[in-house]
Amino acid sequence: MTANIPYIPPVADYAFLYGEAFGRDIVATASGGALTAEDAVEIIAGAGEFAAEVLAPLDAPGDRTGAQLRDGDVHLPDGFAGAYQALVEAGWVTATAPESAGGDGLPASVGAGLGEIWNASNAAFALCWMLSSGAIHALDAAASEELRETYLTKLVSGEWTGTMNLTEPDAGTDLGAIRTMATARDDGSWSISGQKIFITWGDHDVADNIVHLVLARTPGAPDGAKGLSLFVAPRLLVNADGSLGERNRIETVAIEHKLGIHASPTCVLSYEDATGYLVGELHGGLAGMFVMMNSARVGMGHQATGISDRSYQGAASYAAARLQGRVLDRPAGATIAEHPDVRRILGSMSSQVFAMRALSVFVGDLFDRADSGVEVLRLAELFVPILKGWTSEEALRVTSDGIQVYGGMGFIEETGAAQHYRDARIVPIYEGTTAIQANDLIGRKVLRDQGATVAELFTQIEQTVAALRGAPLADRLTRALDAARRATEAVLGFAESPRDAYAVSVPYLMLLGTLAGGWMHALAVVAVSAHETPAETDAARLTDADFYAALHLPRVHALAETVAAGEI
Amino acid sequence: MTANIPYIPPVADYAFLYGEAFGRDIVATASGGALTAEDAVEIIAGAGEFAAEVLAPLDAPGDRTGAQLRDGDVHLPDGFAGAYQALVEAGWVTATAPESAGGDGLPASVGAGLGEIWNASNAAFALCWMLSSGAIHALDAAASEELRETYLTKLVSGEWTGTMNLTEPDAGTDLGAIRTMATARDDGSWSISGQKIFITWGDHDVADNIVHLVLARTPGAPDGAKGLSLFVAPRLLVNADGSLGERNRIETVAIEHKLGIHASPTCVLSYEDATGYLVGELHGGLAGMFVMMNSARVGMGHQATGISDRSYQGAASYAAARLQGRVLDRPAGATIAEHPDVRRILGSMSSQVFAMRALSVFVGDLFDRADSGVEVLRLAELFVPILKGWTSEEALRVTSDGIQVYGGMGFIEETGAAQHYRDARIVPIYEGTTAIQANDLIGRKVLRDQGATVAELFTQIEQTVAALRGAPLADRLTRALDAARRATEAVLGFAESPRDAYAVSVPYLMLLGTLAGGWMHALAVVAVSAHETPAETDAARLTDADFYAALHLPRVHALAETVAAGEI
Repeated sequence: MTANIPYIPPVADYAFLYGEAFGRDIVATASGGALTAEDAVEIIAGAGEFAAEVLAPLDAPGDRTGAQLRDGDVHLPDGFAGAYQALVEAGWVTATAPESAGGDGLPASVGAGLGEIWNASNAAFALCWMLSSGAIHALDAAASEELRETYLTKLVSGEWTGTMNLTEPDAGTDLGAIRTMATARDDGSWSISGQKIFITWGDHDVADNIVHLVLARTPGAPDGAKGLSLFVAPRLLVNADGSLGERNRIETVAIEHKLGIHASPTCVLSYEDATGYLVGELHGGLAGMFVMMNSARVGMGHQATGISDRSYQGAASYAAARLQGRVLDRPAGATIAEHPDVRRILGSMSSQVFAMRALSVFVGDLFDRADSGVEVLRLAELFVPILKGWTSEEALRVTSDGIQVYGGMGFIEETGAAQHYRDARIVPIYEGTTAIQANDLIGRKVLRDQGATVAELFTQIEQTVAALRGAPLADRLTRALDAARRATEAVLGFAESPRDAYAVSVPYLMLLGTLAGGWMHALAVVAVSAHETPAETDAARLTDADFYAALHLPRVHALAETVAAGEI
Repeated sequence: MTANIPYIPPVADYAFLYGEAFGRDIVATASGGALTAEDAVEIIAGAGEFAAEVLAPLDAPGDRTGAQLRDGDVHLPDGFAGAYQALVEAGWVTATAPESAGGDGLPASVGAGLGEIWNASNAAFALCWMLSSGAIHALDAAASEELRETYLTKLVSGEWTGTMNLTEPDAGTDLGAIRTMATARDDGSWSISGQKIFITWGDHDVADNIVHLVLARTPGAPDGAKGLSLFVAPRLLVNADGSLGERNRIETVAIEHKLGIHASPTCVLSYEDATGYLVGELHGGLAGMFVMMNSARVGMGHQATGISDRSYQGAASYAAARLQGRVLDRPAGATIAEHPDVRRILGSMSSQVFAMRALSVFVGDLFDRADSGVEVLRLAELFVPILKGWTSEEALRVTSDGIQVYGGMGFIEETGAAQHYRDARIVPIYEGTTAIQANDLIGRKVLRDQGATVAELFTQIEQTVAALRGAPLADRLTRALDAARRATEAVLGFAESPRDAYAVSVPYLMLLGTLAGGWMHALAVVAVSAHETPAETDAARLTDADFYAALHLPRVHALAETVAAGEI
């Protein structure tokens, strides 16, 4: 038994999602016709091939070895540096960077596919790319020409990587408690001192330099989050001619011993009179963070989807090969995949993975079309916390099921199923816990406009139900929608008793996510039903929709009861 | 941050459960008046003190070091041998062994409390005791006087430990595929050859000898499970005078590298012409297994409860100390335990732990009273798969929540929350996966008597609802009961299409478990409501009941929809 189960990129699903699931070629819309769904599928297939050949084989060994701190430097497991260089040379870092920053500016919907693929093949590795991507967005939004020239270009080319330095021991969710100080120097640079924790890929040996984006307080700044400014602080200082100079005064004090993503170095960084440069406006640090927050949270949806699919692929391939006992109503020699309960678990997993994947693409498409109208942007922003919160929580269930299918072997580390379970457990925590997502959802996206955006969502779902023309899913989705409307009324009724609203914000988020998953399946069924000659994957789409409707969608009713109860 | 969070045994809960929650002193009933609830609470308190002082401090270090195989011998982490000797000397091994085997024969309801406490303080260590306990039951039921004298007495005294050797690489769930062979020798002993895997505590250095109970096939035996016989095979052979002789030909080939319970050695044992002795009838091996299966499965309920409570205790103590951000509608300085969502999570955890604990005791009481009538025995047997399956699945949710409360710190191994999450993941797998429990439930306990026993359960729940006299829980429990009845009708309707029944057996098991948890809270509310002067813990009981009713019980409605759908 080896943990290196081959990774099979879900190319056919992406062809369906880009080309027809949402009733049109969403890639063509997003790119103004420069690209088509077919082009995007080629990109996805290429990324999938790279991921399967280069990244996936490093996933289990990376978990076993983990990142290691030796003499103040972090070393990644064997093969990671080479894989990173290959990723850069193949152009994948540049591909999703915005055109304004010198990237290829691929649509967000295509970025969803790439994000899933990097994370499915190697989630610990993918974090490097995700953090760089976040740093690119932050610098692109606010950095001066000089900083863009020196740092942004190197991030977009992939020569250097980026990090986000927010958290401190007493400032996690509450960024306003940040104590790291930045003091202006005469030469226009800033002296930064303080300790940052949980810095993902905060040090490593896979690229020449690391560009830290650091939230810090300046002398005399207002208290709380409003007094924070954003700085760029490189691991190695950069000379005037762009060459690399001496080491900045940023020390890697420790790396964390974690439950999962062992190959992703999580660093404690100590800044002592380190050199940094102000990004954007003084005291404008939090605004800088918000710029990248949407993309980072959406990226977590891709991670949740990727880890879940990898777990599913492992379980499905084991079940399709394992013989154990006679299978009810099946001929001798049937594998455990045919056992009614194993079929249920695998159907639960695959239908959930499709829902997560489809929603990731759908949200990408909303952002791609956000310029087309304020309703689209509002819907996109409504979905950010749902996508992050719901997919990450569901990834826990999927990866747990992925262990269960293996039986006792699932508990043995060499099997590989346990790694996905461990890796997935961070996703509902970082980039804002599920509670933080849910607070954002309830406070900023539902109560603030008195439910207008969520009502618009329900109307759109209703239109899809009408197009289902009585398919079995239609009845279940209609009742789920009713429950969602009642739950929303309950939430709106808590406007004057906010503790009630925030006590049920997570169940409400899960309810909307579960409903949205059902909607994604409904859209798929509508698209498949329009086929004159069935495509090869149609049967899987219809079966998955039935599994989702029977196993996942009914949870909406339980969650609606919980929401209505308010705070206990 | 240290992982050694003090363990606080739940003595007050047990006082409530033994003395009044079920409307009478269940310990007095079980012991025919020899013991009272007060006596049992003293026993629980004593065990709790021992567990807190001796076992709990070894839990996290044991996880870090793990059991290790060196030169063919397994070594347990530092301190484990001393702790085992202390456990034996304090009489805890003997306490729950049946009187017929020379034990104290404590009631099963008291055994539930002890089981929870050993597992909460150190689940890996507790497995040794659980396996010995299973071996004691198996030998007590079937062994000859000679085997009793030689082996059973040493197990009951705790001088030696016991194991169960069932699984082989191709015989897990399907015991009928076992290939280990036992051949009769002239001297009345048997020669055993074969390989057994997943042998919990299959080798160790904490006691003088190990008594393996081995399922094997004999020459000319019938195919399948009916051809299996049970043998006892000691690690060290026993001389005629009872002294220890040379090593039996049983080699520890490997120990598994597992997701959790690292200090519990999971061995691959190779038998090559090893010496064994037949226990009970030839070809009666499976019957021997069934004797201990109930107690082993019920024991898993105790493990699930214990690990869950430990996870809850860690999260609650962290939340009660951690300051982060302003808490809505609370004065400055309020800890995160007051945040609406953290309160929700902690309430979800504590209400679930109480339900699990109460059901463990309730099932113990049913077995204690099993002689009093066939209905009681049938109800007890109905509950075995529910207790094992439901508590073990819910333990995954509880221990996951236990990580979430810590935020980012929960993902760091040193915090300790992750260990519980890892340890808990085996419970829905071993001693029969949740699917195996659910098949037992549906096949043997529901379809076989056409729902008579489960209907009797529903009637009893209805009586409790009537006694609630309109408490808020009453309405929710009534509707949950309606849903359970509908789901049961659906299951009975699948009698002619067994694949439908077995495809929804796990959701049906979870439905009954969730309902039973609500019933346990209802019984608690009824008992508390009878207090003329409120007891100290009454408020917690009522709040937990409300949390359970709002957060857990509504899941019954989702599960009922899933059950009705049959196979997809």
